[in-house]
Parts: sequence; C-alpha cells; structure tokens
Amino acid sequence: MPPRRTIELSAIKRIENEAFKIGGVVSLAQGIPSIGSHEIIRSSAIEAITKGQVDRYSLSAGISELREALIKKYNLDETESDVIITTGAIEALSATFLALCNTDDEVISFSPYYAAYIQVVKISGATIVDEPLLEENNWRPDLNSLRKKITPKTKAIILCSPHNPTGMVLTKEELEGIGQIALENDLFIVSDDVYKDFYYTNERPYLLQDNPIFRDRLIHVSSFSKNFSLTGWRVGFLIGPKKLLTPVFPVHDALVNCAPVVSQYAALSALKSEEKILAEVMPTYLERRKLMGEVLETLRDYLDFAWPEGSYFFFVKIKNLKDSEKFCFDMLREDKVAVVPGSAFGPSGEGYIRLCFGRSEEDIKEAMTRIKKYLIKWVAANQPT
Amino acid sequence: MPPRRTIELSAIKRIENEAFKIGGVVSLAQGIPSIGSHEIIRSSAIEAITKGQVDRYSLSAGISELREALIKKYNLDETESDVIITTGAIEALSATFLALCNTDDEVISFSPYYAAYIQVVKISGATIVDEPLLEENNWRPDLNSLRKKITPKTKAIILCSPHNPTGMVLTKEELEGIGQIALENDLFIVSDDVYKDFYYTNERPYLLQDNPIFRDRLIHVSSFSKNFSLTGWRVGFLIGPKKLLTPVFPVHDALVNCAPVVSQYAALSALKSEEKILAEVMPTYLERRKLMGEVLETLRDYLDFAWPEGSYFFFVKIKNLKDSEKFCFDMLREDKVAVVPGSAFGPSGEGYIRLCFGRSEEDIKEAMTRIKKYLIKWVAANQPT
Repeated sequence: MPPRRTIELSAIKRIENEAFKIGGVVSLAQGIPSIGSHEIIRSSAIEAITKGQVDRYSLSAGISELREALIKKYNLDETESDVIITTGAIEALSATFLALCNTDDEVISFSPYYAAYIQVVKISGATIVDEPLLEENNWRPDLNSLRKKITPKTKAIILCSPHNPTGMVLTKEELEGIGQIALENDLFIVSDDVYKDFYYTNERPYLLQDNPIFRDRLIHVSSFSKNFSLTGWRVGFLIGPKKLLTPVFPVHDALVNCAPVVSQYAALSALKSEEKILAEVMPTYLERRKLMGEVLETLRDYLDFAWPEGSYFFFVKIKNLKDSEKFCFDMLREDKVAVVPGSAFGPSGEGYIRLCFGRSEEDIKEAMTRIKKYLIKWVAANQPT
Repeated sequence: MPPRRTIELSAIKRIENEAFKIGGVVSLAQGIPSIGSHEIIRSSAIEAITKGQVDRYSLSAGISELREALIKKYNLDETESDVIITTGAIEALSATFLALCNTDDEVISFSPYYAAYIQVVKISGATIVDEPLLEENNWRPDLNSLRKKITPKTKAIILCSPHNPTGMVLTKEELEGIGQIALENDLFIVSDDVYKDFYYTNERPYLLQDNPIFRDRLIHVSSFSKNFSLTGWRVGFLIGPKKLLTPVFPVHDALVNCAPVVSQYAALSALKSEEKILAEVMPTYLERRKLMGEVLETLRDYLDFAWPEGSYFFFVKIKNLKDSEKFCFDMLREDKVAVVPGSAFGPSGEGYIRLCFGRSEEDIKEAMTRIKKYLIKWVAANQPT
C-alpha cells in the first residue's frame, strides 16, 4: 500500500511541532499574530453562538451576509463573478489547484515562495516552476525571465503581494506586466493577498484585482487570518469569474462542505468594523518591524537583509550559510528559539531565515537575544577557512 | 483552460441550493439535526473565545486536550496509532484518499452510498467501485459478491455503519468478514461511523475499530456534527495506524492547516459531557423516526421501505419511479418540499428518495403532508400503461 502524494510537511510546521515538544521555546516561525481577535469580533461570534445561528451547515458557498459584504467591498458584478467562503486561504488554494490543474500542468511561482504553495500545487498533480526574484534587485521580479519560463504546459501564475517571505510589494507596473503575460498566454492567475493590509509604504499596495481587464482570469484568494488575527478561526475566501469558480465549487464542497459557520460570523463582523479594527492594530506591526529591524541592523556583520515594504516578515541572509534547515533546527535545540529555514520557501530561499514580527514585543526581544547569541557561536564555529 | 476534476456538486447540495433560491421550502434533504448544540457546548466555546484560546492556529493535528481525550476514549496505543483533528469527516475522507490513493486505484464502497464518497475518491484520481447492498435482503452486504469485486487495482474498502442512506447497521459477523477480506487482500479500510450514536436496536452498533486485529489497516473517520448537532462547526477526526496516517498528515495540513480552534474546544466539551448530552438528545430521534415511519406506513400503496436500524434517514422506494432526480426537483418546485433523489447515492439508489428525520417535528409533519400530496398527483399522472 505505498502512498501516492509524497507531500512533505513544510519546515514551518516541522519547526513548530518540534518547538512544541521541546517546550520553553520562543517562536518567530509560523506567521501568527500575537494580537488577539478584536472585542467586536468576539462579541459578534458569541452572539451568533447564543442565537443558535452557527450550529448548522451554511450553504457550501457561505452565509449570504458575508458573501454579500464581499460582493459590495470588491464591487463585483454577480452575473460574472462568484464568491466562495473557504476554510482559510489554504483551502481556497487547494480547491483551486485540485479543480483547475491537470497532472503535469505547470504553475509558475516567484521564488522564494510561501511554503504551502508547493504542497497545494503538488496535491493537484501539477508541478511548481520557480521564477526567482532577485535579491540584489531588492526582490523585484524579472518579467523577461518570467516569459522564458512559460511552456505549453504552463497553466497558471501565483502572485503574492505583499510577499511572503521577502516582504516585497509588487508595483502596479510589475503586476500589470505579469497580468499581460497571463493574457497573452491564456493562463489563469492566483492572486494571494493575505498580507494586503500590512504595508509600510505610503500607499496601499496595488492589487491586480483593482483592474477589471484581468478579472476573467483572476482568482483572488484571501483570508481574515492575518489582518484580523483570526488564524485559528479558519476563514478565508475565493473570488473569481464564474467560468473558473464553477468547477472549483464542488471541490471546495468535497473538501470541507462549508467554512466553519461561527468563523463566518466572526469574519462578517470583522468586515463591518474593518476600518476601526485595522486602524487600531496596524500601527503595532509598524512598531514591531522597527523593533526587530533595529536589532538586525546591529548584526550586519553576520547577516544581510532588506527592510520589508509589507507583510510581517524579515527575510534575512546569514553570511556563509549553506544549510538553513540544519541552522534552524540546531538553533532551536540549542537556544530554544524557532525561526523558519529559508529552504522551506523553495531553492532560492537557501541561505536565509525568516523571522515573523507578528509575534509579541516581548517574544521578539527575547528571540532576537537568543538568535544573536546563537549566531555569534555559529559564526565562530563556521569561519570560512 | 479546461478544468480537470469534473466533480459534480452532489444532488443533496443542488437540492438545498435550489430550495434556498425558491424560499418557503420545507427540507428533509441534507442531513442536518434541527436540534441546536447543547448549552454545555456553547458555554465552553464562548469561554474559550473569551479567554483568547481560539484566535491562533493550533498544531495541525489539533489541540492536545482533544487529541488526548480521543486517545483515552478509543483506548489507543500512542506508539502505534495517531489522531488528527479534521475539519469535519469530509476533510478527513478527502485527505485520506488524496494521500493514499494513486490515479486508477479502485476503492470499493457498498452502494447506495453517501453521495460525497464518489467525490472524495474522484478528487484523489481513484475510482469508486460499487458493491450493491441487497434491498430484498434488508440491505445486507453479500461478502461473496464483495470478494469478486477485488482486482489488483483495489486499494481500499469504505464502510459506513449505521449506514447512510439506508439506515442498515452492519453486524459484527459482517464487519469482521469484510475486515478479513481486507486482510487477505492487503487493503486498507475506511470506517465512517458518523452515525454510531443513532441506533434503534437494543445494542450499540459494533464497529470494526473495536477489534484490535484490524487496527493496522483501519482508518477510522468520525465527526461531532451529527451526534452533537455541530454540523456548522466543522470538526471531526481521523484515527489510524501511524504508517497510514503519516502521509495523510501533510495533506491535511495543506488542505486546511488545522481544524477551526473554537470548534475543537466545542468538540472537547462535547466529549467531556458525552453521556449526558446523548441521553438528552437521542430519544428525540427515536420519536421522530416513529413520527415519519408511521406516516410512511399509511402510504404503502405508493411506496416501500424498511424501518432504519440506525442513522436518521428513511430510504424509501417509490413504486414505478424511474427518475428520482426529476421526481425530487419537480416536487420541490411544485410543492416546496426537499428530499434527496436516490440516484445521488450511486446507481443502486435510483428509484428511491431519502428523507432525513433529523429535522424538527413540525418540519417532518409539514413535509410529509406535502410529499403525500405530490405523491398522489404523481401516481395519478404516472399510472403504468
């Protein structure tokens, strides 16, 4: 009985599982906001429970109020577009690739990329194709290089901006250039914007969904996990043209039936008070970015990094690091601090580590102390000969 | 961009979606308990929300307390067995087949079968093979016939007892006979026991997981949805030998990351007060079975049925019915009552309709009145010539 899909658990999860076993670990690994969900959201969820609104399945597509709120927010034409409430962005991605990819199709993703992309694409039978972002160019994409990656097997391009793990934010010109390449080659685009509210630039990041000319090939994946601190609630959504979402819908239904209903009410409440909640929460991330970045600046002898324009990660190059997996697991065991090895984000992430500043100020301070301690030992033991 | 997995939405969902659009429909279609979740469960979920325990991802396998409660309940040896908390039984099934089946593998299911089996097997690329239960034999399985269905491609057998949609409960001899066939042919068994607490016989249904000799090839799928009226909360579990669940775990992780945490706390509370809650709830189903069954008895001129030993369904044969899908959609539009066409449960379900008595007494009464009204019209219009 040999198993088929040799999906490996991502290093993010392996690190977190190991940290859990060891105990006493300070983690900057998995992208989890330390901030709790807002009182407004909790009250709404509790009210829905008390009223008996959450015990029964919703329609597979989700509760009407939440779907309508998203239709309004994204100004969708219901005759052309569809909305499916999902069990987080990850289920949205899995259902999409399972429904739309054939075995041996290719899906291009800028690398380094969110570790789960390789898994969700692999489960569908398709193959992920790396298109490296250039660190020396501040992690910008190279559109000429992207064009060369397209083959007759290419089916889709995954976009993630603000970008996990590098924190890069794609410009309007870059996004539309990529959109144009998708148009010319009849590809669909999966646009993952789960970090859209985490930006440290003057302007809100541009999203491809802002431009209607791409709508008929654009699948927009998002979640309420990061911006509203609802990771544990498992609720996200898919928006796309009916022709693409029609086959995705029964796959979503067969994966989870519907998103957890209590979480759909939490998400509805979050959307209703979006401005207020984000205005309270987002300045904290800006402070934590500063806190972490300033410690990293003092370690420039050992590492290199760019300040992130968005997301809540620093993607840090450790000088002379060849095996980020070993580095991270050794550091975890030795100094009880968890970070993600860059190799988790595809081959172009090797040599890096990812640090999440969504975690609490206290955890960030303690973790940075432990990282510094380990780093000094590691450098001493790994002087290039 | 032709889509790959031509999974169709099950007739259960199509009927419910149509009923939602029409409005004013009384539904006995989707298996949803009308009873709300217990006050004990609600209070525990609310407490977990208030304490801030549910905002962050749990480990992918689930919160420790719930996993430990299941390990204890099922008397598992942790060195051999594993437990994964899932987003309902459906995600448990999807992850299992995606992880363990190769394209072109065959999975045998007794038919008629729960409509989603065909979808979860198809998504994995495998094929479902029908092994008809014999109605004339009160829906018993025929083990000799089962043996003949096994080919070199057969990978697994799905068991569901108490059985959806027929209400049949497999005996110890039948289950162990099937287990023996799996042993002899090196197959794994997926045992879906979501209706295990719904039985109208003197003894609790025997489950294959009760016998340790099958444990190393048995994947036990269950949920808290039906017995604890938590369908909307999306929480279930997988128990199985480590060698089978090890490849399932990363697929589960890539589908949903983890089960909704608030729902995991609800499930934990349900388990802690299991006896009390089930003692309060289960007599209601017995009453509703009687209510529905007694109306059906008055309609024997038009239909035929066996009283269910378990589950909360009557699977009813309509005399001279050739197209259950048309019958059910016509009845829905004409008399605003929703039931599931038997054809949703595979080819051997044609000619039947499934009625759920998990719904409220009021709904059952009104629905039976409408069904009777339609049936009389339909029979008059469809006299065999």
